[in-house]
This record gives sequence, structure tokens and C-alpha cells, in this order.
Amino acid sequence: MTPNVLAAKEALSHLDLDDKPASVKAKSRDFFWYSPVLKSRLDHLVGDFVVSPRNEAEVIEVLKVCFEHDVPVTTRGSGTGNYGQAMPLAGGCVLHMRHMNKVKEIHPGRAIVEPGCILRDMDAEIIRASGQEIRMFSSTYATATVGGFIAGGSGGVGSVRWGQLRDLGNILRLRVVTMEAEPRVLEFTGEELHRVSHAYGTNGIITEIELPLAPAYEWTDVLVGFDDFMDGAQWAEALGNEDGILTKLITPVEAPIPHDYFLRIKDRIRPDQSVVIVMVAPHAMDAFMTFTRRHKGAEIIYRSDKVTAEEKKAFGVAYEYAWNHTTLRGLRVDPTITYLQVRYEDLAQVQAIRDRFGAEVPQHLEGIRMNGRMRFAGLPVVRFTTEERLEEIVRIHEDMGCMIFNPHRYTLEEGGRQSADERQLAFKREADPKGLLNPGKMITWDAPDFTYSEVYRYAGMRPAG
Amino acid sequence: MTPNVLAAKEALSHLDLDDKPASVKAKSRDFFWYSPVLKSRLDHLVGDFVVSPRNEAEVIEVLKVCFEHDVPVTTRGSGTGNYGQAMPLAGGCVLHMRHMNKVKEIHPGRAIVEPGCILRDMDAEIIRASGQEIRMFSSTYATATVGGFIAGGSGGVGSVRWGQLRDLGNILRLRVVTMEAEPRVLEFTGEELHRVSHAYGTNGIITEIELPLAPAYEWTDVLVGFDDFMDGAQWAEALGNEDGILTKLITPVEAPIPHDYFLRIKDRIRPDQSVVIVMVAPHAMDAFMTFTRRHKGAEIIYRSDKVTAEEKKAFGVAYEYAWNHTTLRGLRVDPTITYLQVRYEDLAQVQAIRDRFGAEVPQHLEGIRMNGRMRFAGLPVVRFTTEERLEEIVRIHEDMGCMIFNPHRYTLEEGGRQSADERQLAFKREADPKGLLNPGKMITWDAPDFTYSEVYRYAGMRPAG
Ligand SMILES: Cc1cc2nc3c(=O)[nH]c(=O)nc-3n(C[C@H](O)[C@H](O)[C@H](O)COP(=O)(O)OP(=O)(O)OC[C@H]3O[C@@H](n4cnc5c(N)ncnc54)[C@H](O)[C@@H]3O)c2cc1C
Ligand SMILES: Cc1cc2nc3c(=O)[nH]c(=O)nc-3n(C[C@H](O)[C@H](O)[C@H](O)COP(=O)(O)OP(=O)(O)OC[C@H]3O[C@@H](n4cnc5c(N)ncnc54)[C@H](O)[C@@H]3O)c2cc1C
Repeated sequence: MTPNVLAAKEALSHLDLDDKPASVKAKSRDFFWYSPVLKSRLDHLVGDFVVSPRNEAEVIEVLKVCFEHDVPVTTRGSGTGNYGQAMPLAGGCVLHMRHMNKVKEIHPGRAIVEPGCILRDMDAEIIRASGQEIRMFSSTYATATVGGFIAGGSGGVGSVRWGQLRDLGNILRLRVVTMEAEPRVLEFTGEELHRVSHAYGTNGIITEIELPLAPAYEWTDVLVGFDDFMDGAQWAEALGNEDGILTKLITPVEAPIPHDYFLRIKDRIRPDQSVVIVMVAPHAMDAFMTFTRRHKGAEIIYRSDKVTAEEKKAFGVAYEYAWNHTTLRGLRVDPTITYLQVRYEDLAQVQAIRDRFGAEVPQHLEGIRMNGRMRFAGLPVVRFTTEERLEEIVRIHEDMGCMIFNPHRYTLEEGGRQSADERQLAFKREADPKGLLNPGKMITWDAPDFTYSEVYRYAGMRPAG
Repeated sequence: MTPNVLAAKEALSHLDLDDKPASVKAKSRDFFWYSPVLKSRLDHLVGDFVVSPRNEAEVIEVLKVCFEHDVPVTTRGSGTGNYGQAMPLAGGCVLHMRHMNKVKEIHPGRAIVEPGCILRDMDAEIIRASGQEIRMFSSTYATATVGGFIAGGSGGVGSVRWGQLRDLGNILRLRVVTMEAEPRVLEFTGEELHRVSHAYGTNGIITEIELPLAPAYEWTDVLVGFDDFMDGAQWAEALGNEDGILTKLITPVEAPIPHDYFLRIKDRIRPDQSVVIVMVAPHAMDAFMTFTRRHKGAEIIYRSDKVTAEEKKAFGVAYEYAWNHTTLRGLRVDPTITYLQVRYEDLAQVQAIRDRFGAEVPQHLEGIRMNGRMRFAGLPVVRFTTEERLEEIVRIHEDMGCMIFNPHRYTLEEGGRQSADERQLAFKREADPKGLLNPGKMITWDAPDFTYSEVYRYAGMRPAG
């Protein structure tokens, strides 16, 4: 099965197709370089050409032609995925969704959108039209697409209230095109949604999305300082459990990350001060401040409703200090750091991890509602030395009972639960019989007997050089 | 301190004042008769006259005049309180809030209203104007006032999402008039709110209320049947823990209550079938049905989005089967029953109570969010025999570790935590130095040394006959 790239390009030449090496290279890269491990393995990869379809009919055409000529297709939103989700491991066609960026319908509680919408632009349009906003977004709100968020992300700002994308009710409907001789268009709701959400585009291209909405507010950004990180984390947990105080983000960050990496507000934070970053609904500010004043150690460092326009501009927005933006701010100051994604059972486990690693792994937690409870995900900074030590840190976490979603792996399974997702695999059999969609990302498709005792190496990956 | 009722009436005669015995009697009664214990003690009570102020200035005038003449003032919303909250134990003036029923301002996330607004009318106006609705309401939505709900209620429909009225953030601001020689007008937020909320009007009259709002939806009413009550209760708990499925009411009711008391839908319910009553946001219905189909024993008995207009009209609204309306429907079929209000730790405790009492205490639970978790309050039906047995049932509950909010008592303390509320008491000292506001309802004001070993008997209560 040798791809006939030339024939495919020829057949698609009437579309918005780009094969200029510089731009193809730019569109073949995502935030894989976040991970020193992925950087050393994926840096050389590049697709053969980029097609940007204008509508679903053109998506179908691209998939039909590439199917005919055995050309791999890797879909691209904005390429902000940091698990190398959008890296075209075997080259071929990069399917760029940027033109499919329309908000199609807005109703009470839900909206229907195209996958190439930039989250922030789309949300602004929905807010303007209806006073509603999307329930959750990745901290890459300003640049990422909604299709990339659903196919490659997991949750983010808003998850402290609504849980994660995979929770029932957080995606309402997906419209999907398959990669077959005659591509089919399918509509998924309920149990079927899971087939293609967070599947990295390995088994279908999402062409329309129906999402639930929440009321839009002009959220107040607040930074609360604590002398002791665990004191702040406990305060954050109690805040998340205040049923009447509406928040959208609760993010405890351990010293010295805030002082060292949050350059725009550094002079207000002591080097040994930990902070909790919060987004609070404006009408909840009185209750929030009442709650906060009850806690001795809590010091208000910043609140966006009490600063000048200039100070606000200098600070920016709270969510760009949270989730993976914490890491991003760190990388700008110290490019040698990296990070992990951890699921903690409770704060006792966080404390145990802190005792074990100390300053090598400064903590960064994200409040997430899980099965009805306020829980924490961890995105700790890791002071990177060697790949071996990084692997050891991961192993120690796992030995201590923390689940790791390893951001130093490019496959669905290794970045997830290290096991086959039968529903995604079964749908890939139906929807991508030749295995041409984002090849190399689903281990159970290529190597069903893989045991996870080592890092997976996709055999079809284009060699360097 | 003998009240000079005549002088007060005279001085207030230019207001909307009514002293016709029949109407004064009608306005001196609430739902105290719900309780066989209260019925036998309070049935004879009647105030001396009713004044219905048109605005805050008239409230001030009434309080000033009654203060001068030592006349007790008991405030009345709609008189739906079933703890005898609005019963004028010592006679005097009934201050009827019905004219003060304006929605004053609506903003994103909040509204400012007068206390005499009927909850449903007020909410309809807010929904029409802004697409927002109040977070929670008592099941007496159609008849009760917002002032009575805040001064005499605790929570209800919406509490499964937002917790209860006492939780920080569920009341934003209260404006209160004191009963002094020169009544003061005070504005309370934050910690101060608790002084007068759920204080039965014993220490100030609420003249303006600022409440948080949530987005308004056309909630779908659903009845789900279960062969086994505990199976239904566990399903209900899991539903409440689905972070992405937006619900407003989750109410498990044990057989044979649904078949025997829910006459409007009786023919669809088997005698031995328990039900869970749910209100689901329309855009969450697909996720809700996905969740429900996963559970073998769950049978959809009714959903308001799939019936004819006639069937819908026949059924009515789900919330009028829940909270205290469950009891009300029972009382209509069997006037000898009564009920309790219980706080359960978990479903294991519910099971233990069921094992202990069997058919004498059929269960009715209400999902409530407490400290961030889905928990259950109980409003079980009690097959009443004697007061002694009722007291024994209460005692056994307490011995088994369940807190009882005893609806067979007319004082704040006995209907609550059986202890002084220092903040309410302290504010009464300031705001009602003569103790004229709703006298007899705050034990710690009248009898600070009371030990709760027996039923409190207010010495100032007007004798019968
Ligand atoms: C600084 C930073 C912060 C981040 N914060 C978060 C966060 O808070 N939460 C979070 O979940 N992630 C986060 N991420 C990861 C990533 O940004 C998000 O997943 C983001 O929403 C991806 O959107 P994108 O448009 O850039 O997708 P891309 O990176 O372009 O694509 C992501 C995946 O989706 C597939 N895909 C894209 N569009 C489609 C489609 N229409 N149909 C099928 N498959 C498709 C791609 O093939 C790829 O596998 C962060 C990353 C960075 C670098
Ligand atoms: C069938 C039924 C169902 C019920 N369901 C619920 C429920 O779901 N949740 C719940 O919490 N309760 C419930 N209740 C109790 C009661 O209905 C509620 O508390 C209701 O909201 C009271 O409103 P109201 O206007 O009738 O108040 P009233 O009964 O008139 O007054 C209640 C108390 O508030 C005081 N008050 C009233 N207005 C003011 C004011 N402006 N300033 C100061 N004090 C004031 C009164 O003096 C009295 O002490 C129920 C009762 C019944 C009979």
C-alpha cells in the first residue's frame, strides 16, 4: 500500500491546497516540543501537502481521493496539542479545518458549530448573540479550534463546575465523515459520542458539533496568596465545595512557580508564596469574599474588578496562567523544565508526592468535578534532567497510586489509560478500513499485542533526514 | 407591657388595615395543621388586625406605631409555612406583605425584588425579561412569597444543584427594617445575611431582596420507575453525581406512596413501584436518557416532552409531587398521616431507617447538594398513631445518628438544631428590644436556660377560648 501522493494532489488541485515546503512544514507541527521526549522523536516529521476544505462536501472529496490513492490524512485544528496529536507521523495530507469556522445555530442551552471555529471567537459570537457561553475550554481558548479541543483535548476552564468533555452531557452531538471508498456522514449522540471524541481524528473527521451552553458572565479573575501550599489547596477544595459560589476555575500553584514564572505579576508575589487562581462570577464576589475572609492565611493578591484598566491589561486573563499555560509560562523562563498530567485521589496523595519529590516537582493542581465531587488533577512542573529520570518519576507516581496521562507519548493509549478503547477501535474498523487516518496514534490498531512495557515505536513513522 | 391594640389600630387606620374577624382569622393561619401536634396547640390562635403596607415607608410606620403601643407584629407572606412560622402566638398585628410585590431590577446573574412577590409570578417576570430564573424555590412556588421563603424556608427545587438558602451565595443582599422607637433600615450582605434569613421575622422585617439567578430552561419533567426503592435511590445519587447532566430536582419516593397518593398518574404506576421524580434541562435529555438506559431496572413512566398537551395538563408539574407536596398529596388521600424532616448521612443510613420502621415510615428523599456532594434530605411519610409514638420515632432517628428538623414544633430552635443561634439572637437584641416581633418563636430570647428535654411552651401564648 504505497501512497500515491502526486495523484492525490493532482485530483485535489482545485481545492485550497498548499504544497510549499515552508508552509507545509509549519502546518505539520503542533506543541509536541513541549515534551523533551517527543521533541527528540518527532521533530523531523512533515506532511506532503495541506488541504483546507471549505465545507463538508470538500472534506468528503479529500477523504475519497486520499482513500483511493492510499494517502494518510492527519487533521489539524490549530496545532496546539502537546501530545503530538496532530503530527503526521507517516506524512501525507494535512487536513486543515480553518475555513470551516461558522457558528451555525444558537438555542437556549446549546449551539451548533463547525469544527474549525477558534474557541474564543466562537464563544464571543455566542455570547453576543445569546448571553450564553460554552461550558468549558482549553486554556488555549485564544488559538485552538473547537474540533481540536474535542478530538484532542480533555477539559479545562469550566471543568471545576461541569467535569470533563468525556462526561455525559458535555458534548451533545457530533457529525462525522468516514474514510472509505464512499465516505459516509454519520450523526452521533449518547453512547456513540465516545467513538470519536478524544480519538485524535484516527477514525473519522468531525464536521459539525453541538455543544451545551451555560450563562455567560464577566468572570472576575482573582489571585489568592498563601504562605503554605497545602493550606491554599485545602482552601481551594473547600471553595470548590461551596455549592452556592459560582466559579469557573480553581487552580492552586506551588511556590516558587508563581513568583518565578508569572512575570506579569511577579512583583506582587513573594518568592515563597503559593497562589490559588480563581475565576468567580461577578454576582458571587460578595459570597466569595465572605468565604475568603473566614480563612486567616488567605491574602488577595489581585482581583480584576478592583484594578485599573492598565493593571488589568498588564495581568491579562486568569486562564492563561492555568492548565497548560502554567507550564508554558515556565518554559519561557526556563526551557529545560517539563511537566506531567496526574490524577490525584485526594490532597493526602498530593502531599505524599510532594514529600517524595520536593523541589524537583513543584505542584500545580486544577480543580475538576469528578463524579459529583471536587477533585484535583495535577499538572506539576518537572525539573527535567534525563529521559530515564522522567520515566522513573512517572513510575514512582504510578507505584504511589496516581494515574498518569503521560504527555511524553504520542499514542492515544499511552497518553491515556494504557489499554485499548474498544469503542474507538471498533469504529475505526468501520470508518477507516485502510488505517489512513492519523496513522500511528492508535496502538491497538497497529499492534494489538503491545504490552506497554516500553515506549511504543510506530513502525510506519517516516524516518528522519 | 400590655399591648394597646386599639391605639395602634387608630394610629394606622389610614393604611390598608383590616379588622373584620373572618378575614383576620384567615390571615392568622398558616399550614401549621400539617402537624397533628401543632394543630392541637395552635388552632385557636388569631391576631387582632391585619395591615398590608404598600411600601417600605409604611412598614416603618407600622413598626414604629406598634412599638409605641407594645403591640406584637407577626409578618405574613402567604402563610404556607408548615412549622407554624407565621402563627401570631400572642395576637397583635399581622403584617401582610402582599402589596410589596414588585420586581425592581434584573441584571446578569441577579435580581432585586420586594418580599411580597409570589415566587412563580416573580420568576415568570424575570424569565420573560432576561431568560434567567431564580436558583431555587419551595414547592409552594405557585403561592408562597419570596420573603416568606427566605424568612421561613430552607431550600427546595434547585437545591440539588445549588445547595440550600443558607449556603453562601444563594442570597446576595437583604434590606431590613428594625422594630424600635425609630426603626432603622439596614442592608445586609456576606456574614450578616444569616442574622435575618430563616429567622421567622423575629428580628426584623425584610423589605428588599437581592437574589442570584441561573439560566432559565423549559425543564423536562420525568418520572422513572423502579421495582426496588434503594435501587432507585442509588440511581438517583449517581444521576446527581453526573457533572454534565443539568438537573433541578431529583426525588426518590418509595412505594406505595406514588401509586396511592399521586392520583393524577396513578394508573401508570404499579402499587409496589417506587419512583424517582426528576427535572432535566431540555438540552441534557439525550445524556439523561443515555445514563438511564445504562441502568437495567429504570423504567420511564412519564416525560413531559413526549406527551400530549392534555396528558401534560393532567399530570401538572413535577415539583408539585416533590418536597412537601408529596406530603400534601398524601394528606389529601389519608388525613391521618404526617411526616418528618431528616438529614441523612448517606443511603446506608436510609436503609437502616427503613429496616427499623418498615411500612410505618415510607421513604421520600430529596437530593440536595451539601458541601459539594450529592446528599439526601428525607421527608418520609409517617403513619401517625399517637403523639407519643411520633416522639419516639423522632428519638429513634436521633439515636441512629440522623438529624431531625422537627416539623412538629413552632420554635426556631426546635425546628432547627436545638441550640441558640447567637447571631440571630444578638441581632434581635439590637433590632427588637421589646421582643415584639413574632413573639414566642425564639426560645433563647424568652427562656435562655431551656434544656430541650420537653416540648417548649411559650408562656405568652394566647389561651384558647
Ligand atoms: C499552552 C497549552 C495549554 C493547553 N491547555 C489545555 C487545556 O486546558 N485543556 C486541554 O484539554 N488541552 C489543553 N492543551 C492541549 C490543546 O491545546 C487542546 O487540546 C486544544 O484544544 C487543541 O485544539 P487545536 O485546534 O489546537 O487541535 P490540534 O492540536 O490541531 O488537534 C488536536 C487533535 O484533534 C484532531 N482534530 C482536530 N480537528 C479535528 C476534526 N475536525 N475532526 C477530527 N479530528 C480533529 C487532530 O488530528 C489532533 O489529533 C493545551 C496545550 C497548550 C500548548
Ligand atoms: C405543600 C408545602 C410545600 C412546601 N415546600 C417547601 C419547600 O420545598 N421548601 C421549603 O423551604 N419550604 C417549603 N414549605 C414551607 C413554606 O411553604 C415555605 O417556607 C414558603 O416559601 C413560605 O412562604 P410564605 O410566603 O408562605 O411564608 P409565610 O408562611 O407567610 O411566612 C414564613 C415565615 O417568614 C416570615 N416572613 C414572611 N415574610 C417576611 C418578611 N418580609 N420579613 C421577615 N419575615 C417574613 C413569617 O413571619 C414566617 O415566620 C412547604 C409548605 C407546604 C405547605
